[in-house]
Amino acid sequence: MSHRIAVIPGDGIGKEVMPEGLRALEAAAARFGIDLSLEHFGFASCDYYVEHGKMLPDDWFVQLKDADAIFYGAVGWPETVPDHVSLWGSLLQFRRRFDQYVNLRPCKLLPGIKSPLADRRPGDIDFYVVRENTEGEYSSVGGKMFEGTDREVVIQETVMTRTGVDRVLKYAYELARSRPRKKLTSATKSNGIAITMPWWDERVAAMSESYPEVSVDKFHIDILTANFVMHPDWFDVVVASNLFGDILSDLGPACTGTIGVAPSANINPEGTFPSLFEPVHGSAPDIYGKGIANPIGQIWSAAMMLEHLGHPEAGQAIVDAFEAVLAEGDKAVLTPDVGGHGTTETLGCAIAERI
Amino acid sequence: MSHRIAVIPGDGIGKEVMPEGLRALEAAAARFGIDLSLEHFGFASCDYYVEHGKMLPDDWFVQLKDADAIFYGAVGWPETVPDHVSLWGSLLQFRRRFDQYVNLRPCKLLPGIKSPLADRRPGDIDFYVVRENTEGEYSSVGGKMFEGTDREVVIQETVMTRTGVDRVLKYAYELARSRPRKKLTSATKSNGIAITMPWWDERVAAMSESYPEVSVDKFHIDILTANFVMHPDWFDVVVASNLFGDILSDLGPACTGTIGVAPSANINPEGTFPSLFEPVHGSAPDIYGKGIANPIGQIWSAAMMLEHLGHPEAGQAIVDAFEAVLAEGDKAVLTPDVGGHGTTETLGCAIAERI
Ligand SMILES: CC(C)[C@H](C(=O)O)[C@@H](O)C(=O)O
Ligand SMILES: CC(C)[C@H](C(=O)O)[C@@H](O)C(=O)O
Repeated sequence: MSHRIAVIPGDGIGKEVMPEGLRALEAAAARFGIDLSLEHFGFASCDYYVEHGKMLPDDWFVQLKDADAIFYGAVGWPETVPDHVSLWGSLLQFRRRFDQYVNLRPCKLLPGIKSPLADRRPGDIDFYVVRENTEGEYSSVGGKMFEGTDREVVIQETVMTRTGVDRVLKYAYELARSRPRKKLTSATKSNGIAITMPWWDERVAAMSESYPEVSVDKFHIDILTANFVMHPDWFDVVVASNLFGDILSDLGPACTGTIGVAPSANINPEGTFPSLFEPVHGSAPDIYGKGIANPIGQIWSAAMMLEHLGHPEAGQAIVDAFEAVLAEGDKAVLTPDVGGHGTTETLGCAIAERI
Repeated sequence: MSHRIAVIPGDGIGKEVMPEGLRALEAAAARFGIDLSLEHFGFASCDYYVEHGKMLPDDWFVQLKDADAIFYGAVGWPETVPDHVSLWGSLLQFRRRFDQYVNLRPCKLLPGIKSPLADRRPGDIDFYVVRENTEGEYSSVGGKMFEGTDREVVIQETVMTRTGVDRVLKYAYELARSRPRKKLTSATKSNGIAITMPWWDERVAAMSESYPEVSVDKFHIDILTANFVMHPDWFDVVVASNLFGDILSDLGPACTGTIGVAPSANINPEGTFPSLFEPVHGSAPDIYGKGIANPIGQIWSAAMMLEHLGHPEAGQAIVDAFEAVLAEGDKAVLTPDVGGHGTTETLGCAIAERI
């Protein structure tokens, strides 16, 4: 059985790290005898927008819907297309139309990567953020009144549904149950956001009845961000709404020093539609073209993709490989962001060889 | 001229740190010849709720409105009153009805306080978060449909007004202009929150035309929280909506290790209504009754209050005093959270003496 992978490099350093992501992917596929069929797409990029006046062709849904997974680089090139246009026209479309309602992001202290936190070592921090990825605060419902006058009022609605919240909570509880510590933390703000958030708390409590083995706690988002910095070792699985998850899944990797290398899985757990795997970092216009972008975010995303496709041992082999290369610390191989003077390619090749 | 101060200890450790806040306040008043008249109130506490079935008496507004400032301890005692009831029934009422539209919170690395960040020293981190404090994401507009069924939909509206946003931006620009670096950072999320946040960005840009001396940048809230951890030295004044400001003003002090001692000023800049000064920390039920709560948050709030009342030299004397006591590091004086074995009172007395 062959897995059909849609490959979309996107913009900026997305185009530079993608070849290394594919190199690792193909190395793991070869080693574990996995049959992949890759299809390359140029859309969902600002280059495409400049040529066609839109981020996606009209039939993008049909073109992509039968893929087993989408392997994405990065999107955004504010010089030619404003971010809210490029993002809402691509990534956020995929997440919604392919119902990728779980965004899963690991926060893990890695060997050879300096954390900005004092006195933390690999092993101390190792948790997942499970983010709701289709609804909530990311809505386009709302509008303006008295526009352009002193009386101007601007309203934006957060929309949560029981279906939407319960299914992501279920995913988070399942994940927590599968891990040794079996611990779930819910991000809330029920003391201030007085309608949606107390209700979120109720759904968390209701779901916990089906998972007696999982211990649950909750923190308001303000103190939770503080605890990511002060007590990152407290966390095992953290579940959050779209916006809170967005924040926590940047902050978590920042605490482990891995924001430039963290991966992100946008998952449709039922497999009705393809899931999407991408690095957390963006297109990084400031370093594009220099060949120094760290490819580990893309490579780690390949590992999550293989795991999702039913090949956890292949995914693990990729993770082991880049952890080993990082731990070795060969400056000629590593990119500048992790203390080396190598290139995207030297690091990508070293990891692929190790696989 | 005598300043009328309404004193409200509130709940939990609020009742323990307030006497030390007053001790410092009175010491500074004596030294600088400031005439204070203190009035004590037992309401806006959960004890009051338990007795009266509400957080505030009906005439609270009349009782407090002519005070020159409100000096608040902490509110919340979830064992008897759920947080959203106690908070919306007290603090959030004050902020709104007294139009305290600026919430100002310093983030400063202090001598003698350990930061969770590696390699940062006093002087490296010293910025303010200016938070919009009356509108935005903290609304009670919205509701539920198909309640209790699988089709349940829950909606909460974020409401921003031009008046509300422009006035807090103006305050932030003025503050930035008054500081040596003259740098303002705006917290946004215009790539995801597609209605209110692009408009927030427009208002920031419009206001910047009146402040050509102030350099402005903006970050999406996700990467901004990451930058608080990775590059806290980048910031001078950070302006944010109600929710984003809530998050950043807990995270900032967490990065400096000062979350237990940071102050918060809820300001009505026009002076039409009293402003309110409180520590950032809450009522801390877990340590209440032990006499070990650190009183510096309350004392630092007294300093901000004196500055607001037109006595910056008295405010500075308080700050100098607790910085000196912290730098001295006498374990018999300091509370356990900052490495000592003293009490709320030993630390409060040492600071008052120094003043
Ligand atoms: C207690 C809560 C409602 C409050 C807020 O969110 O404003 C607190 O976190 C604060 O920052 O003062
Ligand atoms: C680019 C942006 C719209 C996106 C988001 O907020 O979801 C990004 O920050 C992410 O986390 O994938």
